[in-house]
Amino acid sequence: MPTTTTSVHLAQRPTGLPVEETWEIRRTELPDELEEGQFLVVVDYISLDPAMRGWLNDVRSYIRPVQVGELMRANATGTVTASRHPDFAEGQAVVGPFGVTEHAISDGTGVTAIDTQLAAPPTWLGALGMPGHTAYFGLHDVGELKSGDTVLISGAAGAVGSVAGQLAKAQGCTVIGVAGGTEKCQWLEEIGFDAAVDYKSDNVLKKLREIAPDGIDVFFDNVGGEILDAGLANLRRGARVVICGAISSYNETSLPPGPSRYLSLLVFRAKMQGFVVFDYADRYPEAVEKVGEHISNGTLTARETVLEGGVTAFNEALQGLFKGVNTGKLVLKV
Amino acid sequence: MPTTTTSVHLAQRPTGLPVEETWEIRRTELPDELEEGQFLVVVDYISLDPAMRGWLNDVRSYIRPVQVGELMRANATGTVTASRHPDFAEGQAVVGPFGVTEHAISDGTGVTAIDTQLAAPPTWLGALGMPGHTAYFGLHDVGELKSGDTVLISGAAGAVGSVAGQLAKAQGCTVIGVAGGTEKCQWLEEIGFDAAVDYKSDNVLKKLREIAPDGIDVFFDNVGGEILDAGLANLRRGARVVICGAISSYNETSLPPGPSRYLSLLVFRAKMQGFVVFDYADRYPEAVEKVGEHISNGTLTARETVLEGGVTAFNEALQGLFKGVNTGKLVLKV
Repeated sequence: MPTTTTSVHLAQRPTGLPVEETWEIRRTELPDELEEGQFLVVVDYISLDPAMRGWLNDVRSYIRPVQVGELMRANATGTVTASRHPDFAEGQAVVGPFGVTEHAISDGTGVTAIDTQLAAPPTWLGALGMPGHTAYFGLHDVGELKSGDTVLISGAAGAVGSVAGQLAKAQGCTVIGVAGGTEKCQWLEEIGFDAAVDYKSDNVLKKLREIAPDGIDVFFDNVGGEILDAGLANLRRGARVVICGAISSYNETSLPPGPSRYLSLLVFRAKMQGFVVFDYADRYPEAVEKVGEHISNGTLTARETVLEGGVTAFNEALQGLFKGVNTGKLVLKV
Repeated sequence: MPTTTTSVHLAQRPTGLPVEETWEIRRTELPDELEEGQFLVVVDYISLDPAMRGWLNDVRSYIRPVQVGELMRANATGTVTASRHPDFAEGQAVVGPFGVTEHAISDGTGVTAIDTQLAAPPTWLGALGMPGHTAYFGLHDVGELKSGDTVLISGAAGAVGSVAGQLAKAQGCTVIGVAGGTEKCQWLEEIGFDAAVDYKSDNVLKKLREIAPDGIDVFFDNVGGEILDAGLANLRRGARVVICGAISSYNETSLPPGPSRYLSLLVFRAKMQGFVVFDYADRYPEAVEKVGEHISNGTLTARETVLEGGVTAFNEALQGLFKGVNTGKLVLKV
């Protein structure tokens, strides 16, 4: 057993974008031995997620905020190196809510064994993990996706968006992605998107009107702000707008204006619906199976951007996420 | 047969609130005789509806805009005084899209016979007309109303809101109304609302948190703006937000900010859905029957505010609607 570990705790609640002072790096002792039912995980990859920003605000939301002093919440992958738990043997690769830490002692809550033959650990934090589940249930259960739909994905080159777009393509839809920058847009076309709109250089509203003159059936929004409005202005009758997140607003210090064009919901008899992936926890295996099949047969490309630097680089990695440094899933290598 | 009639035509598209110059009062000749299949209606009451403002904008929407020079579109009631139509005999009371006019020649399109024993003509423009249908289908088909739900109605003392609230009460729901002014709020309590919030004197968001600490299941919004945001901040998990209209924004000259709190849809796993009552045209008789039963057995009070002055007072009446002079349905007596 290792004797100490390094982990990242919330030092103070941030205003706007988190900074170094938001965090405290702690070197703590590990216990001498495990209790019955526990196992030790050596963490190898930590997931960076837009939702993390929301967990730092002291407001009522879909999940308890991280408290000052607590270990920062994060999903991570790792390997079991010691175990007194019947279901997790030494050597087993796992994914779970281990937090931003090098080592975790777990009782198995929320932990799943992963098959690193099917895909490397970072993919289990992306297409085969929570972002992939989010794409899968958001499109199908909330967006009521049908073959032949015209689908718009914002944040399309991100962890959730890139999976959502490819799942929709695999189901015979026409898929348009919105992303920031030429490289991301080129990648979207490489992985099969029918069109990509670069919000950094295009007028998204006008461009969508050109690309999809008959309107959008399913709009999977990860971004909010002007891009949400541009999509709302281009719906088709009976459209479903899936509110997955709003990365454009997470670091705002006051509540930004909402979608001016929400009355499009009336004109187009459309619905806009939010969801939280945790509600689908009992169906995660279904998402893993379906996305896994697409990865195995080559109809879905899982991509990750891996940052180096270990847990002490967590703040920098999180800032990178909000700057959009990643294509596909962003993970931090421990 | 009368030889001439007076009617109100669109003279120029308004910017903001319509003014006298928006309209042209025309005195026109009526034909000497009816053609086969036509009938003449002497109009007695004209409906004033918030949606009228939208019909004046030259934009793609759920209905063709009124064109400059055209008779202003309006629902109205009246009596058939001459007929060469097999289904509409002389003396029959009718409701239909006759426009802002004293006399209409109709071929029966969109016209329905009304039973003035069940309710006086103005009620056929309110609780038993389009506003009542809107309340009925919005609550049930869009809002998926269930007994025991906590229901929030904005514009609650208006034509649609007052019917929606009473229908929800009749189904065993707890109903909160938002309206402007003490008198309207008192009336809401008289007709059975459990609580009324006066947006002119109360902080709606805080007040709702006090009145409905467990949140709102169905929010039927006629108003938009800050009241929509206040409702969104107070949803319960799985809530349905019915977007019926947004009277607060119809006379804005630029697109006002949308609901800042739309991410509540995610937190509360809620949906926000728009609708247009015309889509339910084949089920209007169902709405008439159900609302009619409630009127007959006294569980629903239909109220109208009747303005005098005839068609030449149309502009003033329409301005009154946006000022909120009405309690219940606003109609103009011809």
